[in-house]
Amino acid sequence: MTTQATDAGRDIARRLEKGQKRNTYLDLKPLAEARDLWFAAIEASGFALQEEEVPLPEARRRVTSRLVQAALSSPPFHAAAMDGIAVKAETTFSASTRHPLDLQVGTQAFWINTGQKLPEGCNAVIMIENLVASPSGESVRIERAAFPWQHVRKLGEDMVHSEILLAPGTRIGPYEIGALAAARVLSVPVCKKPVVAIIPSGSEIVPLMQAREEDLCEGRCWPEFNSLIFASLVEEAGATARVCDIVPDDPDLLQKAVRTALAEGADIVLLNAGSSAGSRDYTAHVLQTLGTLLVHGIAVMPGKPAVLGLVDGHPVIGAPGYPVSATIVVEEFLLPLLARLQHTINPARQTIEARLCQPLPSRPGMEERIRVKLGDVDGTVMAVPLARGAGTVTSLSRADGMLAVPAASEGLDAGAAVSVALLRPQETIRSALLAIGSHDNTLDLLDSLLRRRTSLACSLTSVHVGSLGGLQALERHQCHLAGSHLLNLEDGVYNRQAIRDNISEPVVLLRLVDRVQGLMVRPGNPLHIEGIRDLVREDVTFINRQRGSGTRVLLDCLLGREGIRAQAIRGYRDEEFTHMNVAAAVLSGRADTGLGVLSSARALGLDFIPIGVEEYDLVIPQRFFEDSRMQALLATIRSRVFLDQVAAMGGYGTEKTGQVVWEYEGR
Amino acid sequence: MTTQATDAGRDIARRLEKGQKRNTYLDLKPLAEARDLWFAAIEASGFALQEEEVPLPEARRRVTSRLVQAALSSPPFHAAAMDGIAVKAETTFSASTRHPLDLQVGTQAFWINTGQKLPEGCNAVIMIENLVASPSGESVRIERAAFPWQHVRKLGEDMVHSEILLAPGTRIGPYEIGALAAARVLSVPVCKKPVVAIIPSGSEIVPLMQAREEDLCEGRCWPEFNSLIFASLVEEAGATARVCDIVPDDPDLLQKAVRTALAEGADIVLLNAGSSAGSRDYTAHVLQTLGTLLVHGIAVMPGKPAVLGLVDGHPVIGAPGYPVSATIVVEEFLLPLLARLQHTINPARQTIEARLCQPLPSRPGMEERIRVKLGDVDGTVMAVPLARGAGTVTSLSRADGMLAVPAASEGLDAGAAVSVALLRPQETIRSALLAIGSHDNTLDLLDSLLRRRTSLACSLTSVHVGSLGGLQALERHQCHLAGSHLLNLEDGVYNRQAIRDNISEPVVLLRLVDRVQGLMVRPGNPLHIEGIRDLVREDVTFINRQRGSGTRVLLDCLLGREGIRAQAIRGYRDEEFTHMNVAAAVLSGRADTGLGVLSSARALGLDFIPIGVEEYDLVIPQRFFEDSRMQALLATIRSRVFLDQVAAMGGYGTEKTGQVVWEYEGR
Repeated sequence: MTTQATDAGRDIARRLEKGQKRNTYLDLKPLAEARDLWFAAIEASGFALQEEEVPLPEARRRVTSRLVQAALSSPPFHAAAMDGIAVKAETTFSASTRHPLDLQVGTQAFWINTGQKLPEGCNAVIMIENLVASPSGESVRIERAAFPWQHVRKLGEDMVHSEILLAPGTRIGPYEIGALAAARVLSVPVCKKPVVAIIPSGSEIVPLMQAREEDLCEGRCWPEFNSLIFASLVEEAGATARVCDIVPDDPDLLQKAVRTALAEGADIVLLNAGSSAGSRDYTAHVLQTLGTLLVHGIAVMPGKPAVLGLVDGHPVIGAPGYPVSATIVVEEFLLPLLARLQHTINPARQTIEARLCQPLPSRPGMEERIRVKLGDVDGTVMAVPLARGAGTVTSLSRADGMLAVPAASEGLDAGAAVSVALLRPQETIRSALLAIGSHDNTLDLLDSLLRRRTSLACSLTSVHVGSLGGLQALERHQCHLAGSHLLNLEDGVYNRQAIRDNISEPVVLLRLVDRVQGLMVRPGNPLHIEGIRDLVREDVTFINRQRGSGTRVLLDCLLGREGIRAQAIRGYRDEEFTHMNVAAAVLSGRADTGLGVLSSARALGLDFIPIGVEEYDLVIPQRFFEDSRMQALLATIRSRVFLDQVAAMGGYGTEKTGQVVWEYEGR
Repeated sequence: MTTQATDAGRDIARRLEKGQKRNTYLDLKPLAEARDLWFAAIEASGFALQEEEVPLPEARRRVTSRLVQAALSSPPFHAAAMDGIAVKAETTFSASTRHPLDLQVGTQAFWINTGQKLPEGCNAVIMIENLVASPSGESVRIERAAFPWQHVRKLGEDMVHSEILLAPGTRIGPYEIGALAAARVLSVPVCKKPVVAIIPSGSEIVPLMQAREEDLCEGRCWPEFNSLIFASLVEEAGATARVCDIVPDDPDLLQKAVRTALAEGADIVLLNAGSSAGSRDYTAHVLQTLGTLLVHGIAVMPGKPAVLGLVDGHPVIGAPGYPVSATIVVEEFLLPLLARLQHTINPARQTIEARLCQPLPSRPGMEERIRVKLGDVDGTVMAVPLARGAGTVTSLSRADGMLAVPAASEGLDAGAAVSVALLRPQETIRSALLAIGSHDNTLDLLDSLLRRRTSLACSLTSVHVGSLGGLQALERHQCHLAGSHLLNLEDGVYNRQAIRDNISEPVVLLRLVDRVQGLMVRPGNPLHIEGIRDLVREDVTFINRQRGSGTRVLLDCLLGREGIRAQAIRGYRDEEFTHMNVAAAVLSGRADTGLGVLSSARALGLDFIPIGVEEYDLVIPQRFFEDSRMQALLATIRSRVFLDQVAAMGGYGTEKTGQVVWEYEGR
């Protein structure tokens, strides 16, 4: 038993004594209601950002606090728009090719460069191209009359003194800087940059950069990095983030930290974590003690235990500890507040219409935020949900979009039309090939090389649902291609029969890799596992892959050949979705062995007992084969750099890589 | 004659001697060809950015230089997903409501908090809610079996050690920081930030912040601010901008400046201006002397005199002096280069389909970049071109989008479908009301107040084409409303006959303001102008408004009443498009008087001879009247703050402001 467990024991025992249970006191409010309540209280308290004047060169990214008028007309005088001579047009009216006119320099004609002020009395410019100067330079000859105001930028042509230049709430970018400079607004009225104090709390956490890896791996500490995510979100929103020292779970210390942050000039305080209703969750308590607690709990998953309130008229927000939940709370409450205080737009993500690839169950009464991968297939954007866990921070970094399931919904069916808030530029979605199917490590490598090769004009998005799921998705026109390694038990041939059974349209079967499948075991193979027959041993726990995956089909095929009943294998019903997760299960001791590819075993330093070589192919509909993105993918697959890097991963054969191994005519 | 004119004379005379004329040496290349040529040469020269490792907290906005793999699995062990006890699930299988099971704390059950590592041998967590602890705390009672891995976040559930986390060329945002932190990538391989040296040049320019206003107004100097625009564009693109001191037009000094910038670590040099082929345009010469001149002139308006080349293997770019041209050159060449060097995406602006409101003539053989205002009318995005001048920097800050007219085109017809690159979020376009018609200063004020009132959920975009043009645009469904003040000569009633003549659908006529029209004259009224009759005086020059404007109609009506012939007025054919530009023409001495509103005269400090009060109305189609944006506009018009601020501008009556003065049933 670890020290942590003892601490937890003391703590939880105390909690049980007091009858405190998790979420007991959470009073869930709908998101919009909670936000309105908070905003109204902030407004009622009179809280507002001050205005300040900043010199123009420092105004970039700042937000105007009121309307800005031109301080000077632009141009501030009638200016030459060309190099040449300035004249009074009326004096040139008699000039023609037959009767050229000589103008005296200094009285009738004045040398002038682009941008210069027209001399008094002049109202036109004649271009240097249309002049002949006398040898002495005392006069110039013209062969055509000038019309009034030709080649002249008139005073105020761009803007006139006092004209409204920028509305309040305008974020100042390069163009606004140009307009302000031209209008001689050298000092710009902007909102004071809001200062957000971020207070990380938790007795067990240590700053990320100081946490020792061996302590982390043993669970002796927990690295704090939510503050890094928040600081980045806050800075992107045009505010200043001040990350405070970590505060232990102690209500007095937390109160002190909030008071100090406010005393040191914070406009807003963000507490993280401790926002739930457990025995060590003090955020709500701190608010009740120091100020006003307005909201404790929102009907949104992830993000439920949010806390909103006010202390001394300053907005205070408490976010839960899981990074995804915390991020959603910051995005739904803090970022809109920052925009509101600066009277500017919360750069609302653009939403697009998409179709859901898989059914999405949801709990009624709770709004849900689901991260999705997106791909544009035949002009329809397909949305594939990512892992929902509140701790899966990669579901944020991997996501292309965020989908909101309304509170009233019991879930969405596959194929449902959904509205998705984009996390990446729409162009990126359009340029991506969407692969749904079996997982292989070379797909991630392929994506990286494809991006590099095409200067990011093309990318590969892959979603792992197993070989059979991929073929089904392909048949439903939900993706551009599918990775598959489905062995047919009868003829021992890969993929062809599965394609005949599942696909109606013509497809091309392209070899990606031959790969070695085998049993992964802990280093040194402590249980002396030698093959499939060992899986039935009493002392061996197996970790399986999900139904429909090629590896599962291979296993079942091998078991059949050996006459082994599945029920005889301990852990046969314990399933994982990727090779890497199987490897992780073995490494962690959760299982003693699992079937998978050599590259995954190698990546985690496991030993490996090869079972056989299988064919891992890409199934590509004929109608996409000539698509320029697909051709770029093929070129990448056939490139030297891909072959070399695949070889270096180990366990792969690349003899047939990039070859079309079969063409299916469809039915 | 000013000193400048003398300098210009010397300079231009020298140029004429040498036979050098403007653009003589420009060799215009199509944009894409020029860019490809430059990029190919840069690649051939071996120029590339170096890689560096930065600590994670400093990695925000940087771009990954290669693929990044997880350094640690997340979670790094099997972790509790709930507070409660950790157990081996198999020991709980007998528990039920009828037969509760007591587990010994410390041997069979282990207190655990969310996030902590499961003790050896445990594979499930039972939530605190489902426990009853014995009074001594030595055992806990459960009434339900735990299934294996319940409430456990398994090792590697989010990501497994060595999994690919980020592709190369990924710009690191808040989510990426979270993923890197969770995967314990504490040092991130990123591209070195490119350093762009910006060298402003020109003998007549002075730094913006140092230029004295009286010198500017007299044309004694020209403020340099392009470098501010460029620095902002460069920094937004994730690079470092180094603005150098202004260099006079001297080839030796320019060469020295380029050499110094490179010696001090610049990766890229941007020279501005001097990129054309005049006698003082040395950029091309500098490149020829120091390195390689690849491109001198591109077939794009604005932006034609661009210079591209290499010095010592470093990209060098020369941009022209006019801010709009210069900005387009930077955006079309430098920003794509910065993206390419960092192997990331040039955040290509999103493009949308729109319809052109007005015809757009264009010179064949030259690509054109036209700034447009946008509005979504009945689901169709309408594009209204802004001023094209290369010096009109407000055409950038006012623009919602940028439209490219291809080189082959001789122009586009009104109603043509065009593709527009967005300069603002699409939401902003959707939330804007588009007003096309007569200009009045209160419209700009109205926009500011509407934005503030609705927290930017709504805005008013106004385009000035005169009253009649507005009614015609309304009839063509190109806008949401039109400002109009068209007097009918026969009955002396405003707007109604013009609406009957031009509009078929039902509209509401809403009074915005009554306004005083009059003759603007220079302060002190030196020519003693007293009324319309003075316009025919020999010593008086008039500045007119364009045909179709309400003010022009009013003038013609007044002239008719007085029996004055238009031909008798000097300047009758000299036209401006807004009241403010008429005022500017009078202020500058270009004309002695013009007809316009008091607020414009006041804004520029002119004297004003009132002629009469006119009705300035908004014409609003019935079908838009209930639109929430329109209702927000109405509420703003009727607000105290609008009435007060309009009154403060002077020359306006607000008795009927916000009243529906007429409802037209259509025909």
